Amino acid sequence: MTQEINIPHVLAEVTAAFAQYEDALVNNKVEVLDALFWNSPHTLRYGAGENLYGYEAIQAFRAGRPSQGLARTVTRTAITTYGRDFATTNIEFQREGSPRIGRQSQTWVRLPEGWRVVSAHVSLMA
Amino acid sequence: MTQEINIPHVLAEVTAAFAQYEDALVNNKVEVLDALFWNSPHTLRYGAGENLYGYEAIQAFRAGRPSQGLARTVTRTAITTYGRDFATTNIEFQREGSPRIGRQSQTWVRLPEGWRVVSAHVSLMA
Repeated sequence: MTQEINIPHVLAEVTAAFAQYEDALVNNKVEVLDALFWNSPHTLRYGAGENLYGYEAIQAFRAGRPSQGLARTVTRTAITTYGRDFATTNIEFQREGSPRIGRQSQTWVRLPEGWRVVSAHVSLMA
Repeated sequence: MTQEINIPHVLAEVTAAFAQYEDALVNNKVEVLDALFWNSPHTLRYGAGENLYGYEAIQAFRAGRPSQGLARTVTRTAITTYGRDFATTNIEFQREGSPRIGRQSQTWVRLPEGWRVVSAHVSLMA
């Protein structure tokens, strides 16, 4: 089971999907965020202050979240693809006015409907 | 690109690899932990208090970590496989004497050498 790492056109696709997600996040484009998560009860997202199991829980959380204060500066990015259909994206980020380092990890899978986040974890470093 | 979810024998393999990891973690079997991470500069691990890039940085961190206080109780487990070669494992856990909820997310890939963690994120919920 050899998984070719970072095939250029695959890496380009995931990088573009990731950029779309980041833009949607800081601009609170909730429909885009929802569309980029896998619509499945298996999808999960651990946030800084909540553990969400299933697409519906994630969607409900986003719908109820204030749209202010979402801007952030990404200070480090690591995107890796494995074969043609799997990828991980990891970033460090900071929010204005906070010295804490945030981390966001996402696992992406290419599904019939396109690249989707199947698992995500966001936290602030202790 | 249809990815069959949770094919039973694939799920069984990943569940076994994950159990081996958890046993090695709480018993500080550093060689097993090292063996289960992908030996690559792309591998990364965000810990509760550190961001580690590359297999060597992760290995050095484990080698320098105290072997006490690693026991934990897993309170929720979600393992999902996508096709035959890709999986995510997510758990919630608690350490004795702490009320805080820990979360551990791992992305696993089947490589020629076996199932390996390619990306990990551990944090305490705010």
